[in-house]
Amino acid sequence: MDIPNLRWWGWGTLDRSYPLENRPRFWPTLRAWLELPDDLTERPPVPLESVHLRPSRLDDPVLASLRRLVGEEAVRLDLRARVEHACGKAYRDLVRVRAGHIPNPPDAVVYPADEGQVAAVVAWAADRDILIIPFGGGSTVLGAVEPPPDDRPAISLDLARLDRLIAIDPVSRTARIQAGATGPEVEAQLNAHGFTLGHFPQSFEFSTLGGWIATRGAGQTSTGYGKIEHMTQAVQVVTPVGIIETRDVPASATGPSLLEILVGSEGAYGVITQATMRISPRPEVQDYRGFLFHRLDEAIAALRDLMQQGPCPTIARLSDPEETAGFAVLAHAHSGLRALIDRAVDRYLAWKGHSLTGGSCFLLLGYDGHPADVRPRWRRATQICRDHGGLPLGRSVGESWKRERFAQPYLRDTLLGVGVMVDTLETATTWSNLLHLYEAMTAAIRAAIRGTGGGPGYVMTHVSHSYPWGASLYTTFLGRQVPGAEIEQWWAVKEAATEAILAAGGTLSHHHGIGRDHARWFREEVGPLGLKTLRAIKDTLDPTGIMNPGVLLPLAPDDEPYR
Amino acid sequence: MDIPNLRWWGWGTLDRSYPLENRPRFWPTLRAWLELPDDLTERPPVPLESVHLRPSRLDDPVLASLRRLVGEEAVRLDLRARVEHACGKAYRDLVRVRAGHIPNPPDAVVYPADEGQVAAVVAWAADRDILIIPFGGGSTVLGAVEPPPDDRPAISLDLARLDRLIAIDPVSRTARIQAGATGPEVEAQLNAHGFTLGHFPQSFEFSTLGGWIATRGAGQTSTGYGKIEHMTQAVQVVTPVGIIETRDVPASATGPSLLEILVGSEGAYGVITQATMRISPRPEVQDYRGFLFHRLDEAIAALRDLMQQGPCPTIARLSDPEETAGFAVLAHAHSGLRALIDRAVDRYLAWKGHSLTGGSCFLLLGYDGHPADVRPRWRRATQICRDHGGLPLGRSVGESWKRERFAQPYLRDTLLGVGVMVDTLETATTWSNLLHLYEAMTAAIRAAIRGTGGGPGYVMTHVSHSYPWGASLYTTFLGRQVPGAEIEQWWAVKEAATEAILAAGGTLSHHHGIGRDHARWFREEVGPLGLKTLRAIKDTLDPTGIMNPGVLLPLAPDDEPYR
Repeated sequence: MDIPNLRWWGWGTLDRSYPLENRPRFWPTLRAWLELPDDLTERPPVPLESVHLRPSRLDDPVLASLRRLVGEEAVRLDLRARVEHACGKAYRDLVRVRAGHIPNPPDAVVYPADEGQVAAVVAWAADRDILIIPFGGGSTVLGAVEPPPDDRPAISLDLARLDRLIAIDPVSRTARIQAGATGPEVEAQLNAHGFTLGHFPQSFEFSTLGGWIATRGAGQTSTGYGKIEHMTQAVQVVTPVGIIETRDVPASATGPSLLEILVGSEGAYGVITQATMRISPRPEVQDYRGFLFHRLDEAIAALRDLMQQGPCPTIARLSDPEETAGFAVLAHAHSGLRALIDRAVDRYLAWKGHSLTGGSCFLLLGYDGHPADVRPRWRRATQICRDHGGLPLGRSVGESWKRERFAQPYLRDTLLGVGVMVDTLETATTWSNLLHLYEAMTAAIRAAIRGTGGGPGYVMTHVSHSYPWGASLYTTFLGRQVPGAEIEQWWAVKEAATEAILAAGGTLSHHHGIGRDHARWFREEVGPLGLKTLRAIKDTLDPTGIMNPGVLLPLAPDDEPYR
Repeated sequence: MDIPNLRWWGWGTLDRSYPLENRPRFWPTLRAWLELPDDLTERPPVPLESVHLRPSRLDDPVLASLRRLVGEEAVRLDLRARVEHACGKAYRDLVRVRAGHIPNPPDAVVYPADEGQVAAVVAWAADRDILIIPFGGGSTVLGAVEPPPDDRPAISLDLARLDRLIAIDPVSRTARIQAGATGPEVEAQLNAHGFTLGHFPQSFEFSTLGGWIATRGAGQTSTGYGKIEHMTQAVQVVTPVGIIETRDVPASATGPSLLEILVGSEGAYGVITQATMRISPRPEVQDYRGFLFHRLDEAIAALRDLMQQGPCPTIARLSDPEETAGFAVLAHAHSGLRALIDRAVDRYLAWKGHSLTGGSCFLLLGYDGHPADVRPRWRRATQICRDHGGLPLGRSVGESWKRERFAQPYLRDTLLGVGVMVDTLETATTWSNLLHLYEAMTAAIRAAIRGTGGGPGYVMTHVSHSYPWGASLYTTFLGRQVPGAEIEQWWAVKEAATEAILAAGGTLSHHHGIGRDHARWFREEVGPLGLKTLRAIKDTLDPTGIMNPGVLLPLAPDDEPYR
């Protein structure tokens, strides 16, 4: 029901952090890039005990009726539970939580045991005009699990106990899974039958199946296995007016897709409780390798060829020169023989015209499958990369990427602790528009960081998921925090980036969703009639507006994130 | 604007028919199977001149205002135009049209020249409470283009003039195409740039891009190229309250999919006017071959292996023993050397334990692509088929299938002319449920044909489109017509088949849509809340209900097709 030792003010668990020992280039380079002061003073989060929350607005008779539905233990009002469910894991969230600033905590955290209890709690809340915030892993970076400022009380509905594989159909390669299962819970149960879902977002260790479906998430291997909406065959959704169950068939021609209305609904229409997922046999090998390209446009051309002609990769992440340099400064220092090897490698790269910190682009490319299938794929993929000037770096970089694939959010906590603003955003467009979007977005973010007084800033991007018709861009930006105005500063950068993305033909989000932070641009993304249509669905399924209000559909045209 | 020589009472054009000369086994076998009388008397359709239509209910001032929008020539009230647009090409339609029974013809047929004129006509109709029936190729088999019995006048909005490729993006492999382009128009324009859409339904020669998208159609090669919804990246839809344009990106995480709400909307929400389609390079080879299997379950296992492990076929159509026998009785008679070869082939098949009319199952399997890619795929596919007892028949059966791929609807006209009921239906389910669904559906149809006095009937099925998670079934049924009660008889069979499909876990349609004929089961398919949701969308986009009323969303719970 509860992950022990959770870092309530940051990412993951308190026993882990991003190890910076033995990475001697990191701090000096970051200081230079961001023009940070020499003396970085640590600003620790406030202690949990000093966080003062508004008392719960649910009175004893109401709480008693709730406890009758789900049991005594399943309704929590303690400080820790309410703080952990007060918001997600966006930069904005962490800035506020570290400062103990939590103006709208949930009035209770409820852990239903099963689908029946979810339905009972939703009906109970609808009866009493109490807001419901569905909560999976709480890893949203767009404010999608935060109660709004509202006179009505709000409960956070945590699906942690709905974590079971209900049924598996190995013949049809599908599995019915409860929505509250986290990544490791999904994989462990499928692995026991020889299958995998193949969905590995960076938040994998904490995020849940229901959260992935509600936000149209993508995983690191979604180029091969598909985004979550490509894997979702059917869903069960509990709404305030009843339960919707979509038909479990591989394809149909029965009008508009009800499934595709519920996928991506972000808790604004109801609570996703179960889904039938398309699964794959566990791969016998996961052969991931690195390549270096001289120029970003050449590397993009190689990636496009792989998607359109070559064998479709399971994973393909192409870093721009800035991100490639970022990897290089995070490299471990070696001594003895390995230091000699490192120097030899540097000389070899230089001889080939490459420089990890001087313009080269790193591509992580990988194939999952049977060895007999993976080998010929690699032969062809390597040839395509070479045709575009790519230099093979071998498997060891792939292995080291795998080891750290879920670790980076921990580094963010370290940076926040020393006054660095760091956030990520993502979009997608067609191949022919990709470089234009990349350049427009990057320039806008750089200018905005400087404009807010954040110094030169550092902006780095990778092409994260590819399709035959286009690709997504995933950008990380860093800058000096403006003390006392951290959220205003971040919002100015976020606004500039988003306006640039939309103006350059990108989508508002490729896999993070809308949440609260993107809601003000949702009308521009789907058009006024599109917004009206999606609102009409909300009015039908959630007529009193108790489901995650303010998320997905803006409450007002100029909605801004809460501060 | 008009295909000359159209067979207004049947399929295609008057200069073509299904040639039965030189197929000596056809009529005797059909007589035996259906227990037809020895003397099949031809019942020709009534002459066009004898069809009496209700006069147009649009008065001269209204017509004059319409003509001002689209031009004099683009508004037709002549008998031929109104008859050709009065209904689709279902068995029910042809029975009525051949008898000259057209109670609800459109009051005018309008041919807008472009998207602006479509918008103008829709606004004009909304102002005057005139119904709009969007019309593409008119090849619906579910009553989706027929004006309802209604006091309001109705116009048929024929998109034939919106037939252009607007733009092509060879880098991103997408093309913007107007919705009225027919199959040959789409392909000719894409082929000129070296591309194909890869969508070849049996109705290819007449049906249109907009019709395919509106009904979630599939083509003969959709196992390889995808159903139309998998190829559709963005749409433009004209509704009575304005124009919706979805964003042209390869993927996004921006809430429920507006695109997937408009795809499959069957003209009930608006008129699809343009779409951005995902295109493929024209294949250098289309290598299609035949296999014979001893048993249907073994053949299904081979097909499933191909979809889950083997190289995904471009086309895979697996016929049950009845359909395999049907192909055999349609074979041409040969003389001389070829007759000797035919007999040798028969002996070889018998030696291998096969009999085309005695239980063997025929699989048409094909790969499109570069020769260098197709060859290794065939090696592996052949091995998978052999592993399940499949006997390779070579390429010549593939070539002869290609020659006749669009011809079968012509045979239906011949059969209707001699008193044979013939219709098709289709569904889809998971692999583990496929044989159960097949058996339940087949038994229900057989019993219903006999129950209606249609004799023993003949029911034949093929697996038409496959996925890693399941497949679709496409069934043709034949029986003796009950003179004077042809539509009641057909409806009894259709009802029995549909109830059996839904009870056995199949979907109401895999690629024909809902139209009017499936509307009464739509609630069962999507559930009461699903239906309410889709109605709420209709009320938003078409508040006065002028768009194709009665199609997709039932007007009453017990809606039946018009008679």
